[in-house]
Amino acid sequence: MQSFISTHDVSDIPALIARALMYKNDPLADKSLGAGKRLGLLFMNPSLRTRVSTQIAAQNLGMESYILNVGNDNWQLEFGEGAIMDGTTVEHIKDAAPIFGEYFDIIGLRTFPGLKDRALDYSENVIRSLQKYANIPVLSLESATLHPLQSLSDLITIQENWKKVTKPKVVLTWAPHIKPIPQCVANSFAQWVNAWCGADFVITHPEGYELDPSYTDGATITHNQQDALEGADFVYVKNWSSYYNYGQVKTDGAAWMLTEKHMSLTNDAHTMHCLPVRRNVELSDEILDHPNGLTTIQAVNRVWAAQAVLSEMLNGRP
Amino acid sequence: MQSFISTHDVSDIPALIARALMYKNDPLADKSLGAGKRLGLLFMNPSLRTRVSTQIAAQNLGMESYILNVGNDNWQLEFGEGAIMDGTTVEHIKDAAPIFGEYFDIIGLRTFPGLKDRALDYSENVIRSLQKYANIPVLSLESATLHPLQSLSDLITIQENWKKVTKPKVVLTWAPHIKPIPQCVANSFAQWVNAWCGADFVITHPEGYELDPSYTDGATITHNQQDALEGADFVYVKNWSSYYNYGQVKTDGAAWMLTEKHMSLTNDAHTMHCLPVRRNVELSDEILDHPNGLTTIQAVNRVWAAQAVLSEMLNGRP
Amino acid sequence: MQSFISTHDVSDIPALIARALMYKNDPLADKSLGAGKRLGLLFMNPSLRTRVSTQIAAQNLGMESYILNVGNDNWQLEFGEGAIMDGTTVEHIKDAAPIFGEYFDIIGLRTFPGLKDRALDYSENVIRSLQKYANIPVLSLESATLHPLQSLSDLITIQENWKKVTKPKVVLTWAPHIKPIPQCVANSFAQWVNAWCGADFVITHPEGYELDPSYTDGATITHNQQDALEGADFVYVKNWSSYYNYGQVKTDGAAWMLTEKHMSLTNDAHTMHCLPVRRNVELSDEILDHPNGLTTIQAVNRVWAAQAVLSEMLNGRP
Repeated sequence: MQSFISTHDVSDIPALIARALMYKNDPLADKSLGAGKRLGLLFMNPSLRTRVSTQIAAQNLGMESYILNVGNDNWQLEFGEGAIMDGTTVEHIKDAAPIFGEYFDIIGLRTFPGLKDRALDYSENVIRSLQKYANIPVLSLESATLHPLQSLSDLITIQENWKKVTKPKVVLTWAPHIKPIPQCVANSFAQWVNAWCGADFVITHPEGYELDPSYTDGATITHNQQDALEGADFVYVKNWSSYYNYGQVKTDGAAWMLTEKHMSLTNDAHTMHCLPVRRNVELSDEILDHPNGLTTIQAVNRVWAAQAVLSEMLNGRP
Repeated sequence: MQSFISTHDVSDIPALIARALMYKNDPLADKSLGAGKRLGLLFMNPSLRTRVSTQIAAQNLGMESYILNVGNDNWQLEFGEGAIMDGTTVEHIKDAAPIFGEYFDIIGLRTFPGLKDRALDYSENVIRSLQKYANIPVLSLESATLHPLQSLSDLITIQENWKKVTKPKVVLTWAPHIKPIPQCVANSFAQWVNAWCGADFVITHPEGYELDPSYTDGATITHNQQDALEGADFVYVKNWSSYYNYGQVKTDGAAWMLTEKHMSLTNDAHTMHCLPVRRNVELSDEILDHPNGLTTIQAVNRVWAAQAVLSEMLNGRP
Repeated sequence: MQSFISTHDVSDIPALIARALMYKNDPLADKSLGAGKRLGLLFMNPSLRTRVSTQIAAQNLGMESYILNVGNDNWQLEFGEGAIMDGTTVEHIKDAAPIFGEYFDIIGLRTFPGLKDRALDYSENVIRSLQKYANIPVLSLESATLHPLQSLSDLITIQENWKKVTKPKVVLTWAPHIKPIPQCVANSFAQWVNAWCGADFVITHPEGYELDPSYTDGATITHNQQDALEGADFVYVKNWSSYYNYGQVKTDGAAWMLTEKHMSLTNDAHTMHCLPVRRNVELSDEILDHPNGLTTIQAVNRVWAAQAVLSEMLNGRP
């Protein structure tokens, strides 16, 4: 694996899930695979679970990790070709990235979208420029539009919790929030479930919250949450701001908050959320505290997702 | 040892001191005890000595440590049952803590009091909630009302510097400061000295600076600093704000600043302070620079205190 | 080597360069030299390349490194003898430094100048006080007036890229910037090239940008950039603010920006800059993107510079 930014970087999703579950069963199975290799973890935005789970994954592979916390504020990177840098940007990605490429064997990056300029955010210029100029495998720790380690972890979690031969019905439902949130987790979950082909996949949201079709195509999409939840085996709850009215919040949508009443429509479904979650805004206490809630397991599986991806990168390097 | 928050978590204080001194003599005596174990260090407030000394202690035991810097500002946790999280809190401890419990074998936490609401601070809701929901041993790196690693280190330091058979006279004296300071260090020192029973213990402070009796009961308490210092073997200098007029500073109390004149009343006493110290406000240069000053040794002993506690936790885990 | 703050700490610069190049060829040649030793890295100002390259160097020597991020803002140190600390400073270096001296075997420090008070900055009171009170080797990670790891890395880079028997012509040219910048990198480069004696050294800058003669004495100094560049083999580009009108920016000096036209005067020179660089302000894209540009190599050589210095310190300790 050269980089890990979207499903397009993965040739065999079920094999990657299987590798993650192998590590979950035997964390130190490849404890020397990363010996003498260095993982840089570049955070342009805060991170807690992603940071720790990826460090643990590297440690399990015998790989050294190096944390670089760079606020967008105190180290503004320039990405424009030919830019005259007499303003707020202090370093060009063309100058910074090659050095990371020499210091590290793999570089992880977290970068959030500005939610102001859709074309800019969806060009993924930050992570793509890093990939172009660093010339080593790039591991997305959540980028402007996608969050692949979360999605891989979500698929691992679904597979672990589904024992039938038939495909589960997986529903991604929009949830209310108090401020504009990126589309990353929703885009990414949709892309991964569609590419995986392991589920009957339904997306439901209020009008105006349509996602980028390049990620959702293949799923059934409905504005009727009740219809969507009917017979669901897994319900993934997530807020996102508008894609077409970019970054806007069109409605408070309070009725979309998932409660036990909604869950009664499902097939005793498991509930999922990537965390952090605002209780009793996105979904109710009773669901989060219910044994069917999988949020802790999703977060724990981040370790095995990262470990599987890092091991593929380490194996794939000459 | 399941957790380390107060003396109530310790069954045998002299044995814990002895273990710390054993490690001071032979730092790598148990260099593989923590192999494959992970220590999370969660800082909701800044730390310098505590952070480094605890990391060194973990390293000496072969344990990996993971730093999580979370400002109270950028990651406000919710603690209320049933809270509707449509305000400033972004994550409930019920959702965050179980993940730490899965990532780590032991979790350390630093959290300061707000000094606004005494009942809230003294409920220790932050560290107690972490303990409740993480379900792994919790190591206090200073909490709202106590600072047990400091106090253990202080007892180690007293024991090292006292060679007589009779008990030393230990005096905790209030000192002036320029701003309101938590009662943690004073509470904790009082609690530990009282539980240790290894000293004749006197506390002196101006009227209005009475501490919570649940920590001080057992000590002689006086407003007369001169009487207190008479014949003292160890003088522990520390400012704290009012407990009863919670967080208030009633008087500048400049006369309480410890100087050589005060020390002449003592039995050539050793002086102690947990650092950082404001020179010539809390105590004078001449005392800090005197060979009887123990502040550096107290800070160094933080390593051995942490190592003793971590080793007890590691040994105590099934 | 006891400390590493300026060339005065180094007895044999060519030998140090040779050691660095030895490590570049064989990074793990001394992989156990630092076993059981601890390196503290104290950052009073931000760092990216310095932090990572020094951590990698320590790792290559089997040494543990500990990061301490302390903003000048949130942990203001006091340096004055006899100071009454009732103001903004919270801890005296006399109290803090000895503890670092006990926790660590070597301590690195980054501290920037205030650019307000030349005498204060040039007294190097911060790093010199640390050295005085910590009582262990101090490794400068850039101090108020010098940046020796950068300069050592620069000499390594020059030596690697010069195959002739005759000395290269090395030119340090002032470049424009949009804000006042310390003199550290220029001072340090001048000091090191002069002490090295391996180059014909010319410094060029606009009137008013004269550097401290104690660093530049030995070099040819001219205000005529064209003359300076004539026949140059290496051109080091760097902005600095005025030394005599301390911290002032006297002219925008836009004409001093290095372009291809300037480079045509040289002997197909290599170009150097310590990064970060403001493109098309300090020098033009065409130069930075030209194969003769050495900026990435300079940054990579920081690893080997740090490793050579750390190994000398480790070898020199009893």
